[in-house]
Amino acid sequence: MQIAVLLFDRFTALDAVGPYEVLSRIPDARTVFVADRTGPVVTDVGSLTLQADATLDEVTRPDVVVVPGGPGQIARMGDSRILDWLRTVDATSTWTTSVCTGSLLLAAAGVLHGRRAAAHWLALDQLEAFGAAPTGERVVFDGKYVTAAGVSSGIDMALALTGRIAGDEVAQAVQLGIEYDPQPPYNAGSPATAPAATVAALRANPSLVLG
Amino acid sequence: MQIAVLLFDRFTALDAVGPYEVLSRIPDARTVFVADRTGPVVTDVGSLTLQADATLDEVTRPDVVVVPGGPGQIARMGDSRILDWLRTVDATSTWTTSVCTGSLLLAAAGVLHGRRAAAHWLALDQLEAFGAAPTGERVVFDGKYVTAAGVSSGIDMALALTGRIAGDEVAQAVQLGIEYDPQPPYNAGSPATAPAATVAALRANPSLVLG
Repeated sequence: MQIAVLLFDRFTALDAVGPYEVLSRIPDARTVFVADRTGPVVTDVGSLTLQADATLDEVTRPDVVVVPGGPGQIARMGDSRILDWLRTVDATSTWTTSVCTGSLLLAAAGVLHGRRAAAHWLALDQLEAFGAAPTGERVVFDGKYVTAAGVSSGIDMALALTGRIAGDEVAQAVQLGIEYDPQPPYNAGSPATAPAATVAALRANPSLVLG
Repeated sequence: MQIAVLLFDRFTALDAVGPYEVLSRIPDARTVFVADRTGPVVTDVGSLTLQADATLDEVTRPDVVVVPGGPGQIARMGDSRILDWLRTVDATSTWTTSVCTGSLLLAAAGVLHGRRAAAHWLALDQLEAFGAAPTGERVVFDGKYVTAAGVSSGIDMALALTGRIAGDEVAQAVQLGIEYDPQPPYNAGSPATAPAATVAALRANPSLVLG
């Protein structure tokens, strides 16, 4: 089973690495990081570089596609190389997935039309312009499309997807292997639970998070 | 504030990227990925490469040190370059931290002697040989030493540390920014909650996880 993770300049690292850390542990998984050229790809903060090992042309029939988000998503919304590739791989994928504003790239490629989908809470309302139905859920399955909310939600998405692909026992073993027993020190991870002033501050300046 | 994240071959990606994704969002944070040589460093699964941007010699006084774990930790337990560097940076750090089996590297360097510490649940009992007191907690603060349990626990560790460094409001804003509102699809993230058969399978073959 080939898993293709898309990289692009100024993506958010955890959007890609969270799902990778889970999905790559499925027996028989072969994960490849793909970009419009091979070599270094710099993340949003600018201090971390991941390497793309294959070009878009070299990966055309992955079984699972993972599209991260991050500030760099904005510049890719009109990038025909990326959008054409998403349409190409989606035509034969078993699962097409995204994290954070990665769902806006899937939506811009046209593959989420008529689908329920998740995105980072600050970007959720942008899905409607592409004919997708935004939901505030953390992980949304709609047919073969699996979209997740912001950044860290890709871990939950990938565990749920692992269950669908390889069964509950494998998914539970992966969860135990990565000791995913979350104990956040604050209850501030969603706009419903964070202090109102924190939510307002990010709403007033979403570019702090989304670019 | 300089944050140094140590990389070495066959580290576990999420051990490093989880804390990076949180700590790098602290205002004034400058994060640098450090290894015994600059350039590509391949993670445990073999399909993801991160780049080290500085050598050990180039980063000698970071404010925060983050030591990930992973299968590659075993080969580094006798690596004097790594252990000497850990002692050097620990001499002036404000916070010395680890995730997963990274605490075994800190322990081997001698800096956890007499301290309470966490580690991946499969490696926890190895801490005692180095004079550290293992605890089953997910995140352990003991003085300036902050150690976390397996892989994904680095996110919780880094949020708690962000609160200490920059205050609760900044930490809550980071948590909301990365939408860390975990909703694991299974309750299998610790040996206390996972199915007994899953725990037994990993105990029987810990090298599946720890190398």
